[in-house]
Amino acid sequence: MKLATLADGTRDGALIVVSPDGVTFARAHHIAPTLQAALDNWEGAEPGLRSLEQMLGNGELTGEPLDPNQLLAPLPRAYEWIDGSAYLNHVRLVRKARNAEPPATLETDPLVYQGGSGTFLAPTQDIPLVDPDWGLDFEAEICVVLGDTPQGVRAEQAEPYVKLLMVCNDITLRNLIPTELKKNFGFFNSKPSTAFAPFAITPDELGAAWQDGRVHLPLSTWLNGELAGDPEAGPEMHFSFFDLIAHITKTRAFTAGTILGSGTVSNEDRERGSSCLSEKRMIEIIDGGEARTRYMGPGDRVRIEMLDEEGRSLFGAIEQVVVKA
Amino acid sequence: MKLATLADGTRDGALIVVSPDGVTFARAHHIAPTLQAALDNWEGAEPGLRSLEQMLGNGELTGEPLDPNQLLAPLPRAYEWIDGSAYLNHVRLVRKARNAEPPATLETDPLVYQGGSGTFLAPTQDIPLVDPDWGLDFEAEICVVLGDTPQGVRAEQAEPYVKLLMVCNDITLRNLIPTELKKNFGFFNSKPSTAFAPFAITPDELGAAWQDGRVHLPLSTWLNGELAGDPEAGPEMHFSFFDLIAHITKTRAFTAGTILGSGTVSNEDRERGSSCLSEKRMIEIIDGGEARTRYMGPGDRVRIEMLDEEGRSLFGAIEQVVVKA
Repeated sequence: MKLATLADGTRDGALIVVSPDGVTFARAHHIAPTLQAALDNWEGAEPGLRSLEQMLGNGELTGEPLDPNQLLAPLPRAYEWIDGSAYLNHVRLVRKARNAEPPATLETDPLVYQGGSGTFLAPTQDIPLVDPDWGLDFEAEICVVLGDTPQGVRAEQAEPYVKLLMVCNDITLRNLIPTELKKNFGFFNSKPSTAFAPFAITPDELGAAWQDGRVHLPLSTWLNGELAGDPEAGPEMHFSFFDLIAHITKTRAFTAGTILGSGTVSNEDRERGSSCLSEKRMIEIIDGGEARTRYMGPGDRVRIEMLDEEGRSLFGAIEQVVVKA
Repeated sequence: MKLATLADGTRDGALIVVSPDGVTFARAHHIAPTLQAALDNWEGAEPGLRSLEQMLGNGELTGEPLDPNQLLAPLPRAYEWIDGSAYLNHVRLVRKARNAEPPATLETDPLVYQGGSGTFLAPTQDIPLVDPDWGLDFEAEICVVLGDTPQGVRAEQAEPYVKLLMVCNDITLRNLIPTELKKNFGFFNSKPSTAFAPFAITPDELGAAWQDGRVHLPLSTWLNGELAGDPEAGPEMHFSFFDLIAHITKTRAFTAGTILGSGTVSNEDRERGSSCLSEKRMIEIIDGGEARTRYMGPGDRVRIEMLDEEGRSLFGAIEQVVVKA
């Protein structure tokens, strides 16, 4: 099932169910006004939402035409946005890029940071940039949306807490990171509002590609129409979403609607390109002594999308343009 | 005006207006079901809430008796919880305690971290502790609750965005911090759920004590019935809440209901004691070579409260007991 949020003038938008082909939608306000409300009462809401999807699929219900420009992020604001960094190739390259060592516990203790979750960008919303010297970068990632999750969940118990999956552009201001991390309190100004792809989908939409808490499909990113990377999201995700859930629940519980990200999808095989510019720049430095690729500036366009094995878009596409703010 | 949230079996509780003497309350569901809903529509909701308060105050309305044990945190979950560290005496002592240098930009660039905001503890809720070796500490702080706040607010423009003030216990697991900060992504497991005092109050409740984005009153903390500290919250808050707002809005906007904390209130004058155990332990090390004060364990009680100049409780009291989880 694909869910989305229609812009309707309210803060949190209106929950809609999207047809299996992604072309039409049905309003779901009689089941839950917003996606957060559905997640707050998932057991109550899910059957009704699924039956709407079925009626859209078998033609019993004629959907309204879906325009991605009318969609907000599936959760326009969320109670938590926790981002992992589970692709070690990304960690190694990006740390190298800023002359920092990967942590000694890289392979045994997951990296996560607490992100800002109050003002997410819509799938096709412009990325406002005040100062091009901030070094604007995209990061293509997969996320899960949790139901109510208690403290102390072990990885092998984690699967039922994953209610939905999403794709995001974890926009990053690279040149603000070094000063910020020197202060030792993590990212803040260097992580502006994150953007999300149109659809939040249930794990069964992924079929066999959802396995062991990983999504076994490539995630593709284009910069100004050119493929920047299409790394496989499965095998090199060192810590699975289940491992990440075990990590974050060590000392507290999480509310329904908590978003947990994979970190930038990254493969060791250079042929697969990169899901962010920072990796590409680091490879240029390793190969030729200097970074030739510039960060994004006004007018630059990024597109992020994941297709299934039949070439159908699973989450819809993130398509954003950078604008001078 | 004092607002609070009554436990009513729902996730976000029921908004209530508390009488000026803090003894009775009136339900406000006809104005806004929850505090978040009131903040989402503050201009629409505030007049009705203020008139309820007036009717409670002049006896036109007989309130129901208020039992602090029936209250949740004013916002049981929030879209963002950003915690500053604006009392430099605290930063200097705590960094010394873990053999870390204060950042070079300590006096010019505010320290803030993004906290978890999905599962806050109620004012009198037990603090669950899985492992006493984690080094459980309290931290008494003041917070502001923001209305919708755009990107790029300057400090001198910030005052109108402060809608409410609160007091919190920013519970910290000290012994998890060093490993976590070594990974360079900030706090995560070391910051379990934060607890809040009963009332969220409008700035006018503070009278002249609310000045230049600082609260000019002492904040008192008791451990097992003994005063741990009552530092003045005003003069040594190096960065005001207005400065902190300018800092956090550099690269993004914030939604109504965003909570922004001061960091642990701390004075250079040792006579004022400490608002956390870590400071006390550091002073013991400086004076006698070793920390004698232990962190909190099961059965330990912490109380945090701010009184006005007439001795009236402004926010109600946080009163929590640590329990083995």
